[in-house]
This record gives sequence, structure tokens and C-alpha cells, in this order.
Amino acid sequence: MTPDTLTPALRDLLASVPEAPVTSETVSFTAGDTELEGYVARPGDDGPARPGVLVLHDWFGMTDHVKVRAEMLARLGYVALAGDIYGVDSQPADGDEAGALAGRFYGDVDLFRARALANLERLRAEPGVDSSRIAVMGYCFGGSGALEVARSGADVAGVVSFHGNLRTGAPAEPGSVTAPVLVLTGADDPVVPPDSVTAFEDELRTAGADDWQVVSYSGALHAFAVPGTNSPEHGAAFQETANRRSWVAMKDFFAEVLA
Amino acid sequence: MTPDTLTPALRDLLASVPEAPVTSETVSFTAGDTELEGYVARPGDDGPARPGVLVLHDWFGMTDHVKVRAEMLARLGYVALAGDIYGVDSQPADGDEAGALAGRFYGDVDLFRARALANLERLRAEPGVDSSRIAVMGYCFGGSGALEVARSGADVAGVVSFHGNLRTGAPAEPGSVTAPVLVLTGADDPVVPPDSVTAFEDELRTAGADDWQVVSYSGALHAFAVPGTNSPEHGAAFQETANRRSWVAMKDFFAEVLA
Repeated sequence: MTPDTLTPALRDLLASVPEAPVTSETVSFTAGDTELEGYVARPGDDGPARPGVLVLHDWFGMTDHVKVRAEMLARLGYVALAGDIYGVDSQPADGDEAGALAGRFYGDVDLFRARALANLERLRAEPGVDSSRIAVMGYCFGGSGALEVARSGADVAGVVSFHGNLRTGAPAEPGSVTAPVLVLTGADDPVVPPDSVTAFEDELRTAGADDWQVVSYSGALHAFAVPGTNSPEHGAAFQETANRRSWVAMKDFFAEVLA
Repeated sequence: MTPDTLTPALRDLLASVPEAPVTSETVSFTAGDTELEGYVARPGDDGPARPGVLVLHDWFGMTDHVKVRAEMLARLGYVALAGDIYGVDSQPADGDEAGALAGRFYGDVDLFRARALANLERLRAEPGVDSSRIAVMGYCFGGSGALEVARSGADVAGVVSFHGNLRTGAPAEPGSVTAPVLVLTGADDPVVPPDSVTAFEDELRTAGADDWQVVSYSGALHAFAVPGTNSPEHGAAFQETANRRSWVAMKDFFAEVLA
């Protein structure tokens, strides 16, 4: 990734993590018949095996944002895969297409989970990844995808949702959620209203999930951690404070569960 | 404070913060006609003025727990006052007395705030404290006290409640809450059920408070951060995970607001 090609907002985001040598590459793999194209960023040194983090994109697909997040994670010392849910031939051209694509996956939980898990297995197989120390995170749609990974019962060390939709067509089965879960949500996010948070917590309790946390940030709308988002009339806007604090919360969480 | 006199649980708590030179002393002051006796712990070196943290006790009053917290804060580099709400002549002898005392303050918000603010002013006047960088925190009853300081409109840099009761007899007036607020609460705390959290958030929104965060910890009951508490039948129990994570959240918050 060439910083020159990034928007100023994404350049600032990348610069918020101290610079460190990182290498990155595009990786191709499949889920069923669908060709996926992810983006792997890794610490530039030859060290021991590293924990891996799968970071799932928002409904706009494989944009620079999710790749910058992967680079930021690599600067922290993780091997990060910016995962592809939609497929290389199905990246949305505009908001309408993004909404339609995301809706297809929200409406087909099995497909959503299968795509997320294909990315997870790709990350696990990456050279230099300690496959016993893997976490999954995501933004908006990708936060929902991370939570679907948790619901699927996948053996991961932790799951983080940044302003993910907490609803699902397939609530967690008893005993299925074994990964620690961290939900970072905007207190004024119309996509995730208070009753949605309460229902999610009840879903986890009912499923017997014994390790989850929910953090609510005042004044934060949907997409509070996606730089450049500025549609308060649609309930979505970047918020610098919540973005910064949620990243710190994620770092603490990973320092604990990926240790 | 001599570690030898502490319970093993409190010794472990103190040891959870890397050792650093700390000096401490008992300090006497008044609120109206009432004699208060607090406990100040400070970094042992002669440095520049330090941020100050007021830590308010749970309903059992000036126990070793709140003094250990002051020592932990001093090890982090803060001048900490374990504040006294009840008064030196009104420390409870047992749970019944504790409940009656706490109830007196819950029922008289003006008195509660006056006592908390007397402690705050005492801390502000401490030698070596940067009076422009003061935070207030507390446990259970003391968490409620910290929130009353926020509602009072006191000029402080931050307020943290550990499993504090979020209800008040005097909801925040519009514009009164100017301090950033961090609420750390147990998801299964019967004293702070989900509707109490929602009502608190609504109180802050209505008051126009623009910087607050709520963190909810799964499985955590009331008093999750008070070592030795073990009354799950009464909805209160220490929980190591929530205790550890809430301390980390507090550290991050102070690193931000007391910088």
C-alpha cells in the first residue's frame, strides 16, 4: 500500500500507529466456487510465529480502509488478513450495490459464516502465523461477520466488533460461543439501538457465553471508526474520540487474549 | 500501610501493580462540622506536580481496600486520596450499619455531594498536586459518589465508577456534567440492571453530557472489583477478570484525561 494513494483521513489513521516495517501482498483463495482476494500485512522482520488477526470489511468491501487497518495491526506485531467476504468479482461500485450485497449476506447467515470462515482458514494457513492465536475483528458489516464467526463456534482466541450490527438470523446455540467477545458500539448508533444491545447480551447469556464485554461510546453514530464517513442524517459518522478509544480497547483485548 | 496486615486477597491486588516507591499518610479535614479522615498515597520521588485522583470507598467505609487502591494509583504516578464520606466517627462496624449509612447518603444527595466535594477540595490542596488535573473514582457506593461529583458540575478531568449504583435522587441538570465519565459495570449486577444503565445514559443525554462511556462485563456481579467479596446469593462477588479489565480501562482513561 502506497500512502500517497490514501485519502488524508486514511493517512492520518495509519499514522496513528507508530511506524514499523511491514510487508504486504494480495492473496487469492476460494470459498466454494467464489474467488476471494484478501490483503495480508505482516511485520517486516523474521521473528517467531505471530498471532494472526482477521479484519473484515464494512459493506463497501475491500476498500483502502480495511487494508489500512491490516497495516496498523501489522505495525502492532500481528499478521493481519484484510478478509474478503463478497468475492473479487463482486465488489460494490456504489452505496446501492453495497447495501444490496450486505443484505444478501445478512439474509443468508450460512453463506456469511462460510465466507468469513474461509478467510479465517486462509489466515491460519499463512506462513509465520501461530494458528493457535487467531482473533477476528471487523467494521460495521464486518463486525457482524466477526460476531457470526463467534456464533459459529469457531476456535478463535477473541472476536471484536466495531459498530457491527448485533442482530442475526441465527442466534447463538447453547455452548457455541467459546471465544471472548468485545463489542464496541456507538451509544447513538441507529443501527444498534439500546434494545439491540440488550437483546444481544441476552442472546449470549442464553447461549452460555461466559466472556463478553460491551463498550458504549457517547455521541457515536454508526461507522464511528471509518474515517471519512460523514452522513449524520443517515446515522453514520466518523468520531475521532470513539475511534481512538475503541482502538485502545482492541489493543488491550488482543494483548490479553493473544498473549 | 504495612502489607503484612492486609488480607491475602488485598496483598495480591496491591501486587498487581509493579512496585514503586510510595509514601502515605492519614490526613484529617472537615466537611461542615464533620471530621473526615482520609488516606493520601503519593509517588515517593520529588517530581513535578502530579495529577491527583480521589478514590471513594464502598459502603463499608475506610477499609484497607480503598487504601490499597490509593497505593496502586500512587504506584502509577498519581497523588491519590482515599476519601472519607462517612466521617471518622461514623465508620460502620458491620453490614447493617454500612447499609444504613450508605442509605443516609443515597437519600440526601446534597449531603453526599458536599462530602465528596470536601474530599475533592482536600485533594486539590495537597502539596505536589496539579490542581488542574484531578479525577474522581469510586467503588460501589463510592462509584455513586463519583457520579454525584460529575452531576454537581465540579471541574474535574474525569470520573470513573466501578460498579456504582447509577440512580440518583437528583438527576443531572442540563449542562452540569462537563467531566468525561467512564462507567464500569457488571452485566449481571442486580444493583445495576440493564434498565438502570439505559436510564443513566438517557439522563446524561438529556443533560447534554457529551463525553461518557459505559463498559459492561459479562458475568460480573455487584462489587466485582472488591477482593474478598463473595456473596453471589446477594448478587455481589469479586470477579478477577472484570477487576483486571476495569483497572486497565481506568488506566487508559486516566492516561487520556489526566495527560
